[in-house]
Amino acid sequence: MSAMDDLAAFTRETIALGEVMGRLGWDQETVMPRGAAPQRAEEMAALEAVLHARKTDPCLGEWLAAAEPASDAETAILREIRRSYERATKVPAKLAAEIARVTSRAQGLWAEARAADDFAAFAPTLEEVIGLKVEEASAVAEGRPLYDAMLDDFEPGATAASLAAMFDALRPGLVALKDRILGAEEAPPPLSTTFPEDVQLALSTDLACAFGYDLAHGRIDKAVHPFSSGSGLDVRITTRTDEADPFNCFYSTIHEVGHAAYEQAIDPAYLLTPIGRGASMGVHESQSRIYENQLGRSPAFTGWLLGRMRGAFGDFGVADAETFARIVNRVAPGFIRTEADEIHYNLHIMLRFDLERALVSGDLSVADLPGAWDDRFEADFGLRPSRPSEGCLQDVHWSVGLFGYFPTYSLGNVYAGCLHAALRRDVSDLDAALAQGDTAPATAWLREKLQRHGSLRTPVETIEMATGAAVSEAPLLSYLDEKFSALYRL
Amino acid sequence: MSAMDDLAAFTRETIALGEVMGRLGWDQETVMPRGAAPQRAEEMAALEAVLHARKTDPCLGEWLAAAEPASDAETAILREIRRSYERATKVPAKLAAEIARVTSRAQGLWAEARAADDFAAFAPTLEEVIGLKVEEASAVAEGRPLYDAMLDDFEPGATAASLAAMFDALRPGLVALKDRILGAEEAPPPLSTTFPEDVQLALSTDLACAFGYDLAHGRIDKAVHPFSSGSGLDVRITTRTDEADPFNCFYSTIHEVGHAAYEQAIDPAYLLTPIGRGASMGVHESQSRIYENQLGRSPAFTGWLLGRMRGAFGDFGVADAETFARIVNRVAPGFIRTEADEIHYNLHIMLRFDLERALVSGDLSVADLPGAWDDRFEADFGLRPSRPSEGCLQDVHWSVGLFGYFPTYSLGNVYAGCLHAALRRDVSDLDAALAQGDTAPATAWLREKLQRHGSLRTPVETIEMATGAAVSEAPLLSYLDEKFSALYRL
Repeated sequence: MSAMDDLAAFTRETIALGEVMGRLGWDQETVMPRGAAPQRAEEMAALEAVLHARKTDPCLGEWLAAAEPASDAETAILREIRRSYERATKVPAKLAAEIARVTSRAQGLWAEARAADDFAAFAPTLEEVIGLKVEEASAVAEGRPLYDAMLDDFEPGATAASLAAMFDALRPGLVALKDRILGAEEAPPPLSTTFPEDVQLALSTDLACAFGYDLAHGRIDKAVHPFSSGSGLDVRITTRTDEADPFNCFYSTIHEVGHAAYEQAIDPAYLLTPIGRGASMGVHESQSRIYENQLGRSPAFTGWLLGRMRGAFGDFGVADAETFARIVNRVAPGFIRTEADEIHYNLHIMLRFDLERALVSGDLSVADLPGAWDDRFEADFGLRPSRPSEGCLQDVHWSVGLFGYFPTYSLGNVYAGCLHAALRRDVSDLDAALAQGDTAPATAWLREKLQRHGSLRTPVETIEMATGAAVSEAPLLSYLDEKFSALYRL
Repeated sequence: MSAMDDLAAFTRETIALGEVMGRLGWDQETVMPRGAAPQRAEEMAALEAVLHARKTDPCLGEWLAAAEPASDAETAILREIRRSYERATKVPAKLAAEIARVTSRAQGLWAEARAADDFAAFAPTLEEVIGLKVEEASAVAEGRPLYDAMLDDFEPGATAASLAAMFDALRPGLVALKDRILGAEEAPPPLSTTFPEDVQLALSTDLACAFGYDLAHGRIDKAVHPFSSGSGLDVRITTRTDEADPFNCFYSTIHEVGHAAYEQAIDPAYLLTPIGRGASMGVHESQSRIYENQLGRSPAFTGWLLGRMRGAFGDFGVADAETFARIVNRVAPGFIRTEADEIHYNLHIMLRFDLERALVSGDLSVADLPGAWDDRFEADFGLRPSRPSEGCLQDVHWSVGLFGYFPTYSLGNVYAGCLHAALRRDVSDLDAALAQGDTAPATAWLREKLQRHGSLRTPVETIEMATGAAVSEAPLLSYLDEKFSALYRL
């Protein structure tokens, strides 16, 4: 066996064990009996210890020094193993265990504090989490800004500076567009019917299949928060229902199908290798966003959806396809990020990006976070949160140590804009197909150009190889402007 | 940290990882997408390698030599760790991996051969499995008969000789009783209605709760084969349905609840320790059998069940409680072990016990197995199987290397007989409670006398401490004779 072979065999087992960890997470959020939580925590901690030991195993260092790649795929595999090994070995085992312990507890405390709208109850824990994550970033930063070291976990190659430039490029156009819409918009009528859960779930499954989700290698369950889990031959998604708002279910499903279909489309030759998964959080989000928004919320597709919904639910009081498209694409400021429209969404992210950098640098204290959040929110959205659950306690991310994660959502939107422009350039009559509920021309293009390659290339390379153009914010801004100008006859 | 503390901490993690393996098995049989099997096999193999390494870790030997137990529980914990360690270290890692590999493949081949009724297609694989299991038994036997070494995996302390004596004591009484019944029995009328699946599943859940199954620490799903999975705070069961035969669902559920309620009742202080699970397969089966048969099929309880079934399904053409009790306790020879009545069941096991000992000793060749099976079956049951799927291919056990497992089913019946006699002695008015659907007096007695102790004691000690009497076949024979004589007015 060559060092490359040894490395591949060892890493394959580690990745298989990582998939097991993902399956435990899925189980916990969907089917686990409620009284099993303490035991599950011990099971996951035991498996995490096994994974950490394997990721820092000294054999990896020796094999990495000796391995000679014989293909582009092997070069990429070595790149990924090296990145993981160098990062993992720089973080002291004791610190890694402490972060796992504290964030596991913090998630429960955050949920309680959010339910009670009691920020003070959560503040000491948040301080502890930030302290540990700063310590971890310091261990791996090697002179780079701490926030850049944090970004590396989610978006290799991204920097605070590059993201700040991206947001600077997005902000004026988004603000101008939402002001134009809010000035002109005659609010579409709210839905007044209720939509039975079982019918929603059946239609949601049809939508998942329409977007190419492979149920022989996946399944759909209900969960409190929609998510996609797993890679390779077993990629599961969850959705949720609200009988007053069927779009919550439908677009959660389509979003998660974007993530899951990406994983399912990766070249089977990469199965259980470090390149057999999506290239980064940002690239992943580009897939979920383009499925959900550029395709799923396009007036062509919503026209087809209206017919399907009338078939499933009967007449629900929406007069025509144009009104329906405006309901699906309703633009309004609101406190909750996950409920935001395509335009406001990125403003939610900019707020978090700025505040989390300030928390990490120490420019903002945890005690001052609620006030800073509410001030900034009011400035950007014209509304002031009245309680922490609609302000700085709304998201789980910080409680579990995910600093540097939020900007990948907007990066995904920017990437989706680039991909959508290239898709429209390459594939004619896309709207004619979407108007028939046929996403195949679009999803086939994405599979061929991007999805099948997994992590063969870096995130930016992955997007640029697919589009044949440099990454830019311009396509996203043009797309939003054109779509909403037409919808709202601006 | 003392050696005892080190040992406890290390073993706790190993057991937690073992629970993860159990969860993967549950997932595979209930919710896993059908295309995920190849990946799941790699995940389980990777986890199995981790578990094997931990079970043979040289640290265990050092700690075992130095550990000083400070309580009965710690003494029992050391006994279990020592047993596992000594057994695991005697089996060469290469052989253990080969057995895992071959039996994993063999299970699929067995299923195909059974479906095609093609014994010849499976014979070479069965020979291979037997060869490997004999090699394994030779490695651990230390001069004992090979079959005794195999039994150790399932029923510590049992021997071929002790089991042969048990079967010799059971056989004449069982044969005489079934001949009396079959000579006298006027067959109860077959059910002619169909029983909708959703109503079966709802009533089955009620039955599980009536027998004390705790759904906060468990759940019920459908699977091809009913089973119980997990221990501690997460013990799940499965059931199955047949719209023509609701008893399949109801008694599968009650049987699995017997297994699961045992695990759920174990002292929480033993959670994730080697004594925090049932004492052996035989003791486990005693719980599932007493729940299913001595309690669940008692005429007192079936009287209550008849009322519940009439409420759930409407009138289904059974005139009275006595007829219903005879239908639930129908006695008839049949080819399939899992469908056998309480009397014939043990004859099925005797056949397997004799044939598997002959396969292991080499007295019977794999090529001669089908003929030997059919001859013996005809002699014992008066019927001759017409194809392997109703003969020697019906059970999965041998394909996955479970030699020495079958006799624990009859051992469980004998133990259940002992426990039932002691229960009737200690608890008055049991039938009055059962006639109200109230199993609490019986299940509380079992929890207090047996279940809560887990593996604190050896299997035989566990039964004898609960009953206050030596294990004997007599109570089972008396119980069967009394019950069926009354039912069939012999």
